[in-house]
Amino acid sequence: MSTFRDDGAAALDWVASYLEGVRERPVLSQVEPGEIRAALPASPPDGPEPFSAVLRDLDDVLMPGITHWQGPRFFAYFATTASEPGVLAEILIAGLNQVGILWRTSPALQELEEVTLDWLAQLLGLPSGLHGHIEDTASTSTLVALAVARAASPGRRVVVCSEHAHSSVDKAAKLLELDLRKVPGDEQFRLRPDLLDLDGACAVVATIGTTSSTSVDPVPAIADRCEAEGVWLHVDAAYAGAAAVCPELRDRFAGWGRADSIVVNPHKWLGVPMDCSTLWTSRADAFRDAFSLVPEYLRVTEEVASLSEHTQVLGRRFRALKLWAVLRCYGRSGLQERIREHLRLAALFEEWVRADDAWEVVAPRPFSVVCFRLRGSDEDNEALLERVNATGEVFISHTTLAGRYVLRLAVGSFRTTEDDVRLAWDVLRREAEALRA
Amino acid sequence: MSTFRDDGAAALDWVASYLEGVRERPVLSQVEPGEIRAALPASPPDGPEPFSAVLRDLDDVLMPGITHWQGPRFFAYFATTASEPGVLAEILIAGLNQVGILWRTSPALQELEEVTLDWLAQLLGLPSGLHGHIEDTASTSTLVALAVARAASPGRRVVVCSEHAHSSVDKAAKLLELDLRKVPGDEQFRLRPDLLDLDGACAVVATIGTTSSTSVDPVPAIADRCEAEGVWLHVDAAYAGAAAVCPELRDRFAGWGRADSIVVNPHKWLGVPMDCSTLWTSRADAFRDAFSLVPEYLRVTEEVASLSEHTQVLGRRFRALKLWAVLRCYGRSGLQERIREHLRLAALFEEWVRADDAWEVVAPRPFSVVCFRLRGSDEDNEALLERVNATGEVFISHTTLAGRYVLRLAVGSFRTTEDDVRLAWDVLRREAEALRA
Repeated sequence: MSTFRDDGAAALDWVASYLEGVRERPVLSQVEPGEIRAALPASPPDGPEPFSAVLRDLDDVLMPGITHWQGPRFFAYFATTASEPGVLAEILIAGLNQVGILWRTSPALQELEEVTLDWLAQLLGLPSGLHGHIEDTASTSTLVALAVARAASPGRRVVVCSEHAHSSVDKAAKLLELDLRKVPGDEQFRLRPDLLDLDGACAVVATIGTTSSTSVDPVPAIADRCEAEGVWLHVDAAYAGAAAVCPELRDRFAGWGRADSIVVNPHKWLGVPMDCSTLWTSRADAFRDAFSLVPEYLRVTEEVASLSEHTQVLGRRFRALKLWAVLRCYGRSGLQERIREHLRLAALFEEWVRADDAWEVVAPRPFSVVCFRLRGSDEDNEALLERVNATGEVFISHTTLAGRYVLRLAVGSFRTTEDDVRLAWDVLRREAEALRA
Repeated sequence: MSTFRDDGAAALDWVASYLEGVRERPVLSQVEPGEIRAALPASPPDGPEPFSAVLRDLDDVLMPGITHWQGPRFFAYFATTASEPGVLAEILIAGLNQVGILWRTSPALQELEEVTLDWLAQLLGLPSGLHGHIEDTASTSTLVALAVARAASPGRRVVVCSEHAHSSVDKAAKLLELDLRKVPGDEQFRLRPDLLDLDGACAVVATIGTTSSTSVDPVPAIADRCEAEGVWLHVDAAYAGAAAVCPELRDRFAGWGRADSIVVNPHKWLGVPMDCSTLWTSRADAFRDAFSLVPEYLRVTEEVASLSEHTQVLGRRFRALKLWAVLRCYGRSGLQERIREHLRLAALFEEWVRADDAWEVVAPRPFSVVCFRLRGSDEDNEALLERVNATGEVFISHTTLAGRYVLRLAVGSFRTTEDDVRLAWDVLRREAEALRA
């Protein structure tokens, strides 16, 4: 075991040094497709190599192909953080290697998962009594929720969502062979409830914090309709849900407690390492009806339902342990501080954009993502983005809104400071200047 | 960062000490349902707590609820190992926190995943040129493969498998709304190809190493039929696939290279921590046709397909890094040694059972799982298993075969020695004796 301790110390030192220096690395990997593959041997080794060789090649071969999600100037998609307590919890998770297939295969895994989901529901102001479990990503959470909705509504084969809903809804509908009915958004990119047609619908997906603009669908109005017509309401708050830890932001979450199922991704904006998607439901029985299947080799004598009876996959990692570590090491106040700081930084950036006539803000900003563009053509903006990301100084992504190419600055890393946001603005203006020249 | 380094050293020491002492712990958790939950606070903390508090409560509150999958006397289900290099790689994975949604979000993740899947295919003697990617568990791999099969075979809605196929096939068929046609097994629990009816079938799932008895379906005969009738062949070798690293065991894998898709779980018998399920296909285009969906916010300029276009979920962890670390730190010979030792230990145990008239072996043993029972009633065997597991000395699980209650001893942990297997046999005989008394 001395090897494990020594190699472990080296691995830990590697990560500590990495996090200390991540600010200096080019954010978006600058390699060409195939470059990493070409630098790796074509075949595995015949005999054992030391762990130090893995660390060496991580540095020499793989690092150029890393895009630094942990870096403070990662502003693309939704910026995330594997916080220090979350990283350390992953060491424990791997060491214990729990495989949650049944309660008895890890009572601690199952009961900690139930408890931390209760804790997080409390932090987010969700109603008490929801049943929660963890999935890998929102793709799976939404798939699972819609599968339950389908099973609970025989004969109804339509999923309704806004045109701004995430592509995972499209993918889930395709896998479940449900028709997808997309409702137009209003000028603020919110689902228009006056256009909501629930004919034949088994589910509506309402989004709090859409991927492109973080717009908030009018959940109360949608919930009214769903309740009146007996349609399952799934709320996708994968990104924005974290913001509900702040009471002053709860207005954005009005009505979500009426949903039949809700997904929030703690791996997005709550400091939990990838992957950890939390899924709550007020209709646990419907989940169990849809998914429980206990073959003889999994039959047990104790009378307790396993979490695997509430979802598609049988085996689960001990993800609850990292969620628990993060919730404890930050606490309610620590998480609130970070969310508030991110909203402050996003507001600051938005202000700078608004104050400069060469630029425009193109969507309301309910959370920490600013949608903006250079006044000019789509091509100009696309060229600008390529230039900006090629510098490696920051990484920003894009979308389209109302048919126009739009840049998105997403503040979400626990490591991002005001200086980092200012640098993003400086780089954008500098490269726009260069583009004009 | 000094906190991260100090807390990290404590976490690492915790894991090292745990692995050093895991042999002494009761294998199956002895807590009652609800006991762990009751020992945890009902609400999350308002303010930050130190990481040391997490470690303290891990010991004081959670450890009684841990079933020791890492222990050398875990013989239930399929015994697994989070090997030391695999555990250390998880530190790196968490530290880097790559989120693989597109190639550019982590070229290293995607290309290492492609390369390690190539490496593993070579180690297992699979044909060259397969496309591989990693899923969380075999539940997902099989679901994804069957979804592609369904999409590739319009109008055909039947999945065919043996009565001994894993419950994940049932769950996948249910989610995909496919009819499941179960083919009876022969006296050795192998699918009977003479009873194979492919009418309306979009897929056949053949299993190499079924869950109950590790029986091997006659893949060459099944492949003949699938090829003749244009039906997708999915091979489930989630557990046993690892054994193909040994050329002398390849006879059990005859024909699997003809499959359209194959799943093997390196988190089962190849030392990779939970979770890591590898899925190969000879029909990558069919996967991409079934799953590719690129919304504007994920459109990129580089011409390279992302792994997310081959499956249901968008985001993926950097699981390839732990597979890479394990393949390198053991090498071909290291993995072969462990598989061979497990087969030797299982053969030894089988010999002891056969030599004792009070016991019987009830299935052939192609791999490292022995199916056996005490000569007596099902009730006797069930009572015996409860007694044995209550000792905490070993953990063994059961199944039914040919309508009878059967005990299973699964050798699969890299930490298991001959003494551990002998102890299992001693405990079984001792408890059987006590039961008779």
